[in-house]
Amino acid sequence: MKQKFSHYECSICGANYNPGEVTYTCPKDGGNLNVILDYAALNKNLTPDKFMDIPEASLWRYINLLPVEDPGGFATPLHRAGWTPVYQPKRLAKKLGLKHLWIKDESPNPTASFKDRASAIVVARAQEIDAEVIVAASTGNAGAALAGMAAAIGAKAVIFAPKTAPPAKIAQLIVFGAQVLLVDGNYDQAFDLSIEATQNFGWYNRNTGYNPFTAEGKKTAAFEIWEQVIRGLPENEKPLTIFIPVGDGNIISGVHKGFKDLQALGWLPNMPRIIGVQSEGSAAIANTFHQGDEDIKPVQATTLADSISVDLPRDGVRAVRAARDTGGTYITVPDSAILEAIAELGQVGIFAEPAASTAYAGLVKALEEAIVQPEDPVLVLSTGSGLKDVKAAMQAVAAAPVIEPNLEAVKKVLQ
Amino acid sequence: MKQKFSHYECSICGANYNPGEVTYTCPKDGGNLNVILDYAALNKNLTPDKFMDIPEASLWRYINLLPVEDPGGFATPLHRAGWTPVYQPKRLAKKLGLKHLWIKDESPNPTASFKDRASAIVVARAQEIDAEVIVAASTGNAGAALAGMAAAIGAKAVIFAPKTAPPAKIAQLIVFGAQVLLVDGNYDQAFDLSIEATQNFGWYNRNTGYNPFTAEGKKTAAFEIWEQVIRGLPENEKPLTIFIPVGDGNIISGVHKGFKDLQALGWLPNMPRIIGVQSEGSAAIANTFHQGDEDIKPVQATTLADSISVDLPRDGVRAVRAARDTGGTYITVPDSAILEAIAELGQVGIFAEPAASTAYAGLVKALEEAIVQPEDPVLVLSTGSGLKDVKAAMQAVAAAPVIEPNLEAVKKVLQ
Repeated sequence: MKQKFSHYECSICGANYNPGEVTYTCPKDGGNLNVILDYAALNKNLTPDKFMDIPEASLWRYINLLPVEDPGGFATPLHRAGWTPVYQPKRLAKKLGLKHLWIKDESPNPTASFKDRASAIVVARAQEIDAEVIVAASTGNAGAALAGMAAAIGAKAVIFAPKTAPPAKIAQLIVFGAQVLLVDGNYDQAFDLSIEATQNFGWYNRNTGYNPFTAEGKKTAAFEIWEQVIRGLPENEKPLTIFIPVGDGNIISGVHKGFKDLQALGWLPNMPRIIGVQSEGSAAIANTFHQGDEDIKPVQATTLADSISVDLPRDGVRAVRAARDTGGTYITVPDSAILEAIAELGQVGIFAEPAASTAYAGLVKALEEAIVQPEDPVLVLSTGSGLKDVKAAMQAVAAAPVIEPNLEAVKKVLQ
Repeated sequence: MKQKFSHYECSICGANYNPGEVTYTCPKDGGNLNVILDYAALNKNLTPDKFMDIPEASLWRYINLLPVEDPGGFATPLHRAGWTPVYQPKRLAKKLGLKHLWIKDESPNPTASFKDRASAIVVARAQEIDAEVIVAASTGNAGAALAGMAAAIGAKAVIFAPKTAPPAKIAQLIVFGAQVLLVDGNYDQAFDLSIEATQNFGWYNRNTGYNPFTAEGKKTAAFEIWEQVIRGLPENEKPLTIFIPVGDGNIISGVHKGFKDLQALGWLPNMPRIIGVQSEGSAAIANTFHQGDEDIKPVQATTLADSISVDLPRDGVRAVRAARDTGGTYITVPDSAILEAIAELGQVGIFAEPAASTAYAGLVKALEEAIVQPEDPVLVLSTGSGLKDVKAAMQAVAAAPVIEPNLEAVKKVLQ
């Protein structure tokens, strides 16, 4: 079949590969592969107006810049991934002293996190290459997203998880009909076993920072930010500053890729400034950024923001570049600030999981340190629902008072 | 100010009241009040095409048939309530032997349940009548929805809950900035105290089956079903059969009201057949329906579907009529069937809480008992996200196998 992209390009050595030549990372150095579209051919037929003219309330509206065909599954959750709302919380903006503040909330995605974007594209790619089974090592949002998107069109998903994974997270995967294998070992052993099984059984592997199509799904958030916000900014406005939570680095890399696609087509006059935010307890990529090189060194991650708790980021180099190449930076925040951010976002009706609120915590710190100016237009990417981690919410707020069942007691509390 | 509705009508004695005359239930007999629109005036200016022509992906697209003005809060979660997806899970339809099956999934609502519809309208009404504080007795979805919708536009919410309520559910309310009061007593005492405080402090009370505007929010689901499904049915098709989970009876009453509005305008040739589904352990309304009268007797509710676990339904009479007046019926299902339904829906990528999966369990039983025929077009209303009750999901599926971290172990499990 005809492929919808031109070639792969290694992010480390720059080597090019034809679509059928490789599947995951660079055979020479293990570098993450960028999926390169045929921008010259696209430029002949596609205009921004044509690009946005598809009446579809999901990421599939951007089919013309995706490297896969539409996998079908219309009127299933697969066709509901993406196209998430952008809120303008005026009270928060005023409190922070910002002229423009947008928050893009990924909770309405089918499995309630940003990861549905990646899984939707990987499921489509699996169908194109006739892979019958899609596999991932994950206990969290990526696993749920793969299980949910696969279920939507009846594809088979296998998830490897360490046996210590919380039973509640595992239950969701099984509800979606995924085959879950609890590995008697740690996360790295589950990861390695998923790769071994992939090779042995001819499966297709979704692992983040390994499969090049996850970033292609994540880039759709950039297209949405462009359509929903950037195109509406006055021409003399400063470029949009975007805060993104960072764990393994694949979301920030994917969003950067989306903007690079738009820039390659000449549709994005001002590249947004991308600021990555990590927990202080899981800051491998921020460390590398501030060292000024691309050498990612593992850490011993300890943060309550489990979705961005990562020892060795698998997409670190591209993540460093996303900030460096756009005039952005990396910010780290303590867990206490992440919890405060949950409460702040809740005040305007947005319930975020810790990883999601981390981006907002980064904005607060960036304002304190004058990394962002009051007149800068700012967008915060809130990557997942607070319902994913209600325990963290309990830590974020004070307990409610207990009162006697009478009016006097009510009056006393309200005084 | 000019009111957007004609009058209230008591559902028990039929007495009429002007908009400013009463606020909650009928002063004579405590009956639930229906909000009656001025259908004759509407008919002069409004057509179905005009009605649907508002480019807004929320329930506010139906502003012309709502009894409130748009409260503002554009680009906040308040303008994201409603307009939920309708899925067509073909594999499930085939398995059940149904020609047409739609599932309307309420999970993408801002606080992940159907209750956002009611709270959105109540928040708007509070603004119209200059009520500064909105109060509710609830530990569950209604409380979260009120807290979330109020937070969206900076309105103040007070929630009364029994002190035995699960801390995780309370945390969400506090994150949304609601003032939560834990009452040292049972749910009924919390409910009564909320009413007393409402009267004493001049607050506005959202309690379900008490405030007439909750049903006006819930009716928007009927408008969506009409726009998304019914208008596309062939003329010679049988009327749509709709399965709705029932606890206190307000959702089924609200949906029925929406269809009655459309019928009053002459836009709905065939009233859908509405089937209420209750847990066997909380079947007060089903009992009354099958007795053939309108005398609602309390039960001692015991079901794991906590959102529909109700001793004395507060909107029982209208709920009985919703089925009776549309040629529908009531079905009860055991908790085991509710759990099985969670797993069934998961197979097509829909993660439902127990109350939500109850409707699907009702469909399965209706087919077994030939209450529904294979050629009947069927819609199931799935009212909330499975993330609201992950413990139930754990009960719904078998545990995953634990394996040694090697390929042989994987092979053994897959055989």
